[in-house]
Amino acid sequence: MRIVVLAGGIGGARFLRGLQKALGDDAPDTSITVIGNTGDDIHLFGLKVCPDLDTVMYTLGGGINEEQGWGRKDETFRVKEELAAYGVGPEWFGLGDRDFATHIVRTQMLGAGYPLSAVTEALCERWKPGVRLLPMSDDRIETHVAVDVDGERKAIHFQEYWVRMRASVPAQAVVPVGADQAKPAPGVLEAIAEADVVLFPPSNPVVSVGTILAVPGIREAIADAGVPVVGLSPIVGDAPVRGMADKVLAAVGVESNAAAVAEHYGSGLLDGWLVDTVDAGVVERVESAGIRCRAVPLMMTDLDATARMAREALDLAEEVRV
Amino acid sequence: MRIVVLAGGIGGARFLRGLQKALGDDAPDTSITVIGNTGDDIHLFGLKVCPDLDTVMYTLGGGINEEQGWGRKDETFRVKEELAAYGVGPEWFGLGDRDFATHIVRTQMLGAGYPLSAVTEALCERWKPGVRLLPMSDDRIETHVAVDVDGERKAIHFQEYWVRMRASVPAQAVVPVGADQAKPAPGVLEAIAEADVVLFPPSNPVVSVGTILAVPGIREAIADAGVPVVGLSPIVGDAPVRGMADKVLAAVGVESNAAAVAEHYGSGLLDGWLVDTVDAGVVERVESAGIRCRAVPLMMTDLDATARMAREALDLAEEVRV
Repeated sequence: MRIVVLAGGIGGARFLRGLQKALGDDAPDTSITVIGNTGDDIHLFGLKVCPDLDTVMYTLGGGINEEQGWGRKDETFRVKEELAAYGVGPEWFGLGDRDFATHIVRTQMLGAGYPLSAVTEALCERWKPGVRLLPMSDDRIETHVAVDVDGERKAIHFQEYWVRMRASVPAQAVVPVGADQAKPAPGVLEAIAEADVVLFPPSNPVVSVGTILAVPGIREAIADAGVPVVGLSPIVGDAPVRGMADKVLAAVGVESNAAAVAEHYGSGLLDGWLVDTVDAGVVERVESAGIRCRAVPLMMTDLDATARMAREALDLAEEVRV
Repeated sequence: MRIVVLAGGIGGARFLRGLQKALGDDAPDTSITVIGNTGDDIHLFGLKVCPDLDTVMYTLGGGINEEQGWGRKDETFRVKEELAAYGVGPEWFGLGDRDFATHIVRTQMLGAGYPLSAVTEALCERWKPGVRLLPMSDDRIETHVAVDVDGERKAIHFQEYWVRMRASVPAQAVVPVGADQAKPAPGVLEAIAEADVVLFPPSNPVVSVGTILAVPGIREAIADAGVPVVGLSPIVGDAPVRGMADKVLAAVGVESNAAAVAEHYGSGLLDGWLVDTVDAGVVERVESAGIRCRAVPLMMTDLDATARMAREALDLAEEVRV
């Protein structure tokens, strides 16, 4: 079975680890291709940083800081402290010494002419994540967020909105700058075309999965693949399980609840949708929108719970397979 | 008094500290301009590394690793270890985490379009070395060394010869690649023209001072300045005080002794020359070449000894001033 997963950062990475656990070690005929969001990539200190790709790579490769969900474990911050001593920021973005090495290697390879997909493959030779990790595109795409500050609207980088401002003001608009001119990275459309199932983890539907779908060709390829497409709600009750998805959902006119997110993806794209048991009341609403829906526990409290979620998603995929 | 010093790395930096000590804190009318060698600059991991400029900056700014004479004190090597884990080298060049920050800032500024002289000035705003530190040129110059390996002659970067090979094979030639097309950095010729004295510290006469003199215009400006030019021998007895100057002197056909180095600079450039007391026997030979010579202790064993050397150099400059 060939599984394609559209992944953002922490939520996507943790779901993938559960999926690997659900499939077990003896699944030689199963392959997972991850299409990773690059809209939150950012240039810092002249280096190319790909937070979502790295979170997937570090999480599946055993290098992640488990507590915070991003960055390297046993991390130190000597380089960042020195940069601050030079008066060079931003200080609000937590780049550790070990993490810096990844960005130095990536930037050097990009500078030598390798596309991001080749660089990601090279980095994964070390981490051996057990999945094929593809950036959604080799072209530069940057998610910008329009915010009103002191009565003035301005567009800022997603990381500035998310990390520096902690999404403390409403997002007026979310724009994946450059997406309209971008092409899917080599292998992306082929993986979708050859997939037996496509999964949307409980990642942010706007700035993670939504950005991937904004790359021309990807949404259409998934809709046309003729295989089950199943998603898991990142909203449980009226709030995101983690992160601040509600802040950016409002910007695209979507209510912050499990049914509204499913309707946002739409039955043209989505065949099945998992909501948490506390949201069992919306199952009927989702199904009336033409999307098969099940209510199951959706809290990724530990690896076993996450594996059960992944198993439920695969089961729902088989149920909707025609 | 305006003093111009041509400096390489460790020897030049330590001499400069002695010179500052010799001049004392209450020398408001004295300024030191350092023209630093950039021929040993190297691109590592996509970053621009300027070992000699940084050694001067760290030494005079209080950030140097005193024991080894280069690099930062209290240094760690997390980034380098991670780069090695990615299989990315070279491992033979010791870049520490704190040091990396300097190269990241420099590379980012160069990428933004600032010339090396402006970058160096910006870095010195933090370190406050108490001298005006100018790179010899904003243009890229790389000292290459021709060596015979397995019967084949090849040109390698100076750092590879010096650091990786520890100068273990004879240098057949030393070539400052790019020097013939380079221009002195802004301020270099002006500083020389306005100098009251020019000093050559006991730096390597081939790959440090020699490379600076290879930038078209600098040698001529010093020769034409009409002010005392005084040097200190880096060779004591038949051996370099530190480093492996003898290895590269042979490549330019110069014997490894204090008199031969003075003759190599020549009386057209040099007005005065200090040799160590153990080399008192060569004073007559140097003076017969038209260069005033004194034998004084030349071992930079501590700051006071180094300050006395600097004072001797300044005294000799006054003696030869016409």
